[in-house]
Amino acid sequence: MTIALSDIQAAAARLAGRAVRTPLIESPALNERLGGRVLIKAETLQRAGAFKFRGAYNRLSQLSQDERRRGVVAFSSGNHAQGVALAARLLDCPALIVMPSDSPAVKVEGTRGFRAEIRFYDRFTEDRVAIADQIAAERGCVVVPSYDDPHIIAGQGTVGLEIVEQARALDLDLDLVLSPVGGGGLIAGVSTAVKALSPATAIWGAEPAGFDETRRSLASGRRETVDPQARSFCDALLTPTPGELTWPINQRNLAGVAAVTDAEVADAMRYAFSVLKLVVEPGGCVALAAGLAGKIDLNGKAAAIVCSGGNVDPALYGRVLGGEI
Amino acid sequence: MTIALSDIQAAAARLAGRAVRTPLIESPALNERLGGRVLIKAETLQRAGAFKFRGAYNRLSQLSQDERRRGVVAFSSGNHAQGVALAARLLDCPALIVMPSDSPAVKVEGTRGFRAEIRFYDRFTEDRVAIADQIAAERGCVVVPSYDDPHIIAGQGTVGLEIVEQARALDLDLDLVLSPVGGGGLIAGVSTAVKALSPATAIWGAEPAGFDETRRSLASGRRETVDPQARSFCDALLTPTPGELTWPINQRNLAGVAAVTDAEVADAMRYAFSVLKLVVEPGGCVALAAGLAGKIDLNGKAAAIVCSGGNVDPALYGRVLGGEI
Repeated sequence: MTIALSDIQAAAARLAGRAVRTPLIESPALNERLGGRVLIKAETLQRAGAFKFRGAYNRLSQLSQDERRRGVVAFSSGNHAQGVALAARLLDCPALIVMPSDSPAVKVEGTRGFRAEIRFYDRFTEDRVAIADQIAAERGCVVVPSYDDPHIIAGQGTVGLEIVEQARALDLDLDLVLSPVGGGGLIAGVSTAVKALSPATAIWGAEPAGFDETRRSLASGRRETVDPQARSFCDALLTPTPGELTWPINQRNLAGVAAVTDAEVADAMRYAFSVLKLVVEPGGCVALAAGLAGKIDLNGKAAAIVCSGGNVDPALYGRVLGGEI
Repeated sequence: MTIALSDIQAAAARLAGRAVRTPLIESPALNERLGGRVLIKAETLQRAGAFKFRGAYNRLSQLSQDERRRGVVAFSSGNHAQGVALAARLLDCPALIVMPSDSPAVKVEGTRGFRAEIRFYDRFTEDRVAIADQIAAERGCVVVPSYDDPHIIAGQGTVGLEIVEQARALDLDLDLVLSPVGGGGLIAGVSTAVKALSPATAIWGAEPAGFDETRRSLASGRRETVDPQARSFCDALLTPTPGELTWPINQRNLAGVAAVTDAEVADAMRYAFSVLKLVVEPGGCVALAAGLAGKIDLNGKAAAIVCSGGNVDPALYGRVLGGEI
């Protein structure tokens, strides 16, 4: 199964007037720092604070009336949770979210604020897929995966559609697009849109060190898995292995993936605070971190960097600003 | 002396390709909270983190070659300092900035980062105007006022020009524009542009409680002054009295001004962090605070709120996020 540009365009039509067309922000200071023309696609400004609303709304708006009545179940560390919860609320559909018990409080509150039911699980000992499947079987409701679903990928792809349109409005031919990689849904959608409309643009991913399974998979040619002992504060990107559906797309489309340390991500969050004036969460900041740390060379290049989410606990943010991370 | 729309349009031409055309950001969550359609003009995303670059560049780009060689002097708590320092650097013109010794460190560093010379003074015992005038006399350089100058006002007015253009691109007729008020340069320029292009739009200001001299001046019909004992953490807005040039413009153009407490501003900064994902400094957040605190009624209205700057020390920001203010 593959995703076509037309699927992403159809998603864009469903999202029109629902999702925010987030700005592609130019900062002369960032250009100067990186020696290129480097714009930020600020999905931090998306509804519920992350790109995830796009895929969730695209999926849920295509449910039958009967499915919508029975409701949906999703598992997520927080951003997909909030995206599904908000999309469900807008479509008047019950939602139950299976969240790790160590999810950031801000994401739990956000999900609850959209009136979703929450079921916590232990990320290290319980299987969230099994829990979601069991709930779906009991309630007869639809499971909404966070990345391995064609409608989710097509929805996230609208980020790529907008990047190309917004860059063209600036008369800019992009050499590169950089995006965070977790399960790979965002970059699969983005790369599909960008490659279709601007084939010469290289798509680069960024992952947290230790959770760089897509980077390692590209090297080995098969879906690698994460060491269960790995830890990172990039809570949004702690996926165990590339998705079944996202992996072949990303294997085909990506020029490469850079891995960044938590320290590099924290540096990038501070840069986003002090120079860009954007609140970016750890997982949302990995692509910017890869650029700032010089892991992807942007010198002399025209590039767009996706900052994919801004849902960060104020206490953690304070620690990052204070240089504790 | 007055400022015409044509002065602001000429400033816009000078600023094209130099200043950032900052986005007018829509947040469905903010719309829902306020019961209207309320967009944010994010001047936090302007070069050097505040609207001030606009006026400074408009002024400095009109210096003669001889004036440019001799340099400029400005006094400022920090945002005008950085705006002047950056404009001077771009125009290859020396700049000396007279700053209060209690300026936020981030603003001092920013000013220094643009390679300006800094002279500190005590805000409570020394007269910054006298200091700047003396330096100007010694060096034969031009004083660049932070608001009481027609070119500065015209430059800041480009914010209003963009608001009207960006709202029209969304097919939106604005009922209100809300803007912070310090010396009144920003709102004088904004109100001139908006009133010329959209006469039915009401212009509202917001000031920190205790520094609400424009609000009190509108009530009394004459330029009131601030109690020297007044204190606020809105460092960018601690002006003693409305400007000679800005006051008659604002007296004519403003529908009113709301005063907000530091606690209301801190609430708005937290809202900007957690919902809008924008870093806004205290003084930059007073108009948003006035809206969120219900001091200016936005229910059922179409409005634009200027968030005028984002230069805030990380330690202070951490205290705001932690609820200490």
